[in-house]
Amino acid sequence: MSAAELRATLERLCKERPDLRFLSDSEEMTPYLREWRDAYRGEAAAVALPSSVEDVVALVKLARECDGVHLVPQGGNTGLVGGQIAFDSEHAITVSMARMNRILEIDPANNTLTCEAGALLADVQAAADDANKLFPLSLASQGSCRIGGVLSTNAGGCEVLRYGCAGDLLLGIEVVLSDGSVWDGMRPLRKDNTGYDLKRLFIGAEGTLGIITRAVLRLFPKPRSLMCAFVGIDSPSAGLSLLREAEEMSGGEVTAFELMPRIAIEMVERHTPSIRIPLESDAPWYVLLEISSSREEKDAIDRTEKILANAFDKNLILDGTIANSKAQEENFWSIRESISESQKREGGSIKHDVSVSVSRMPEFLERATRAVEEALAGIRVVAFGHMGDGNIHFNLSQPTDMERDAFMLESERFHRIVYDIIADMGGSISAEHGIGIAKLEENARHKSGVEQNLMRALKRALDPGGIFNPGKLID
Amino acid sequence: MSAAELRATLERLCKERPDLRFLSDSEEMTPYLREWRDAYRGEAAAVALPSSVEDVVALVKLARECDGVHLVPQGGNTGLVGGQIAFDSEHAITVSMARMNRILEIDPANNTLTCEAGALLADVQAAADDANKLFPLSLASQGSCRIGGVLSTNAGGCEVLRYGCAGDLLLGIEVVLSDGSVWDGMRPLRKDNTGYDLKRLFIGAEGTLGIITRAVLRLFPKPRSLMCAFVGIDSPSAGLSLLREAEEMSGGEVTAFELMPRIAIEMVERHTPSIRIPLESDAPWYVLLEISSSREEKDAIDRTEKILANAFDKNLILDGTIANSKAQEENFWSIRESISESQKREGGSIKHDVSVSVSRMPEFLERATRAVEEALAGIRVVAFGHMGDGNIHFNLSQPTDMERDAFMLESERFHRIVYDIIADMGGSISAEHGIGIAKLEENARHKSGVEQNLMRALKRALDPGGIFNPGKLID
Repeated sequence: MSAAELRATLERLCKERPDLRFLSDSEEMTPYLREWRDAYRGEAAAVALPSSVEDVVALVKLARECDGVHLVPQGGNTGLVGGQIAFDSEHAITVSMARMNRILEIDPANNTLTCEAGALLADVQAAADDANKLFPLSLASQGSCRIGGVLSTNAGGCEVLRYGCAGDLLLGIEVVLSDGSVWDGMRPLRKDNTGYDLKRLFIGAEGTLGIITRAVLRLFPKPRSLMCAFVGIDSPSAGLSLLREAEEMSGGEVTAFELMPRIAIEMVERHTPSIRIPLESDAPWYVLLEISSSREEKDAIDRTEKILANAFDKNLILDGTIANSKAQEENFWSIRESISESQKREGGSIKHDVSVSVSRMPEFLERATRAVEEALAGIRVVAFGHMGDGNIHFNLSQPTDMERDAFMLESERFHRIVYDIIADMGGSISAEHGIGIAKLEENARHKSGVEQNLMRALKRALDPGGIFNPGKLID
Repeated sequence: MSAAELRATLERLCKERPDLRFLSDSEEMTPYLREWRDAYRGEAAAVALPSSVEDVVALVKLARECDGVHLVPQGGNTGLVGGQIAFDSEHAITVSMARMNRILEIDPANNTLTCEAGALLADVQAAADDANKLFPLSLASQGSCRIGGVLSTNAGGCEVLRYGCAGDLLLGIEVVLSDGSVWDGMRPLRKDNTGYDLKRLFIGAEGTLGIITRAVLRLFPKPRSLMCAFVGIDSPSAGLSLLREAEEMSGGEVTAFELMPRIAIEMVERHTPSIRIPLESDAPWYVLLEISSSREEKDAIDRTEKILANAFDKNLILDGTIANSKAQEENFWSIRESISESQKREGGSIKHDVSVSVSRMPEFLERATRAVEEALAGIRVVAFGHMGDGNIHFNLSQPTDMERDAFMLESERFHRIVYDIIADMGGSISAEHGIGIAKLEENARHKSGVEQNLMRALKRALDPGGIFNPGKLID
């Protein structure tokens, strides 16, 4: 079947199903086929825009009937590993969930929110907030990413330390399966031991096992106050000790713990002069620490001050300050959030989104930094991120006196160095971002044969016809 | 192959593998074949007692080679639905994990504990405690149950409200698969998005997909103090409001919230005179509320008093008291923990372990109570349990003037009434206990065809030869 025939078939389907739409004009399709950073430019026969689960069922059935046709589910097109991009102008249909974006129900007494899979993460956060609850998952892309994508990539963020990743915030799900049937697992239940944990199959599955159409999400009490501290420390080891102390003293209420090296702070200062570093003295490393509290602000400040004072006494921190206004808190966070952008302006950057045991983070940083510095004089290690959950963005900025392209040609060499250390330390080569197409080969290199076989067995069981996002996550 | 031939084969295997043992003497096998309450008396050709993952691999390979032979994994033989009992004297081998009981490693800075699957839950709790951490899963059977069983049944307990079920406390796992390969998923990582969430397949799988041999468990900071309150309320609705208020005011630090009807309290008083009810006035319902805190006791008491005072002001509670010593706290819990035993002494009891949305618990209790009372005059509803996570033990004690056997003959009729209401309300017919063999038929009646097909597809993919616990969980 040619692309034209496929589009004609879609056309007929849309006549039967007037709420289903699709795009086939090249310009109209571009926003769905071009990865948001332009890292990938895909191709598809069409971009379908279903409005209901029945539309999605119809698309799945169409894919089954048309030889070789496959579906590429897409949320907000904010993924970082190309999992959401179609690469086949004849056989691929991108299925954008953007029109299925409604918040359906909030049940505050049950601490649940029900929504369609195309609901924007920011809308879910806002709806929870309106009900005086918290949906504790924040991402830079939250204004654009959608719940189905968030679940399919098991997205994290800065609060994983306290609340877990997307999969930990899910109670129920509705999925269209490869045979066109709809699995209604929309159970708003905290406890249900009546079978396999089927919903978890789809978490982090990157659209390769089914298309999520609805979800029941968990809500949490809103903290009454959030204390934000910016501290200088002399080493990641000190950071680790600070983390554990803060956790003990706050009863597990540390909501975020972000590590930043001085080099990153300098880059931010250089490229974003409006951002002020809130400490006077320099430190080799910095931590942004956030502690939430159910109490009034004064009590939360007292406790955070106690935590910092205790850290000073134990020589865990060199300097530190607590934000005493929302504006100050936002300033602290803007430092952290500006690192990526600032690093981009420093030239070529070779990136790794890795994790190890939290306890081995200092060891990883030391080993990996030494290894890459030995491999190339002048390389600038910019390692920052979610130390609290063992996840670091181990990024390498080019030597200042090197050509960008020449540096980027070294990517494979440095991936080899970094990922081999990760493998040796039992870590993950993709802590947050997933595999998609970007890390397919690397993953196959590191994942055991037994595990790859298990994954293939699952894929064969749930999608024997290979209609869901082939060529992503697993070969 | 006859049972005798199977045992001869096992004998030969044990010669090759001197650390592997098995039992074939009828009396020796009894503790492994008899369900702990004597609800089931099973049969097996042998009870194998592996000492290592290699022993388990050898047993799996033996089962593959010997036609029709299957394995029934067993932890502490404390399961409540017969999933751990073998029922075939010719073809079944019970695989008891009891000898693989070591705690292997504790990494406090990573908040993880690694153990073999046969480790006793009580030992895991103690090891965590020694490291000044908390493994927050407590069960009545914790002195006997083992981690593999706890994971395979996704066991809950009283702290699910705060910490989740067993599956939420797991980071990594090692499993022997049906082809005899070992999946090493022992990753002590909080974040790892490199594939399907394979470890969750085995959570609640009741030994039907593989044999768990090791696990990496999550640890938490130990609360500095635990405040326990016993309150009288006038209805489950008031209880629900109290729960949400307590959650708000404590920032989600409500660790347990147990509902008890007055009839249960009266039964406890009747059968355990040593237990004192700590309130003077009667109430139609009672709640045992536990709030943990990272602060000194005085602060925690203050806060709990505030929570109760607030509840009084809003007419949510009729009476209440806070335990002011460990002994008092234990007394409060002993009331809750004596309900089952006391109810047993009141004659026949027809039991249901069900869950609904927390917000619909009052509605369920009202509907189900009315329905069973209409069905049989004099029936005594004893509904108690984990209201905080929507799970109630909806038990029915016989009318005082009825023959026990005659009442128990009504079991099917009452299951029909109760489970039909549960199904209508989108609840679960087995919130905690699992399916095993006890609820196989009931589950098949309620679970959608799509879901049963999905489960069968998984079972076929992971255990095509049907060697793992056939006849349990799914047909």
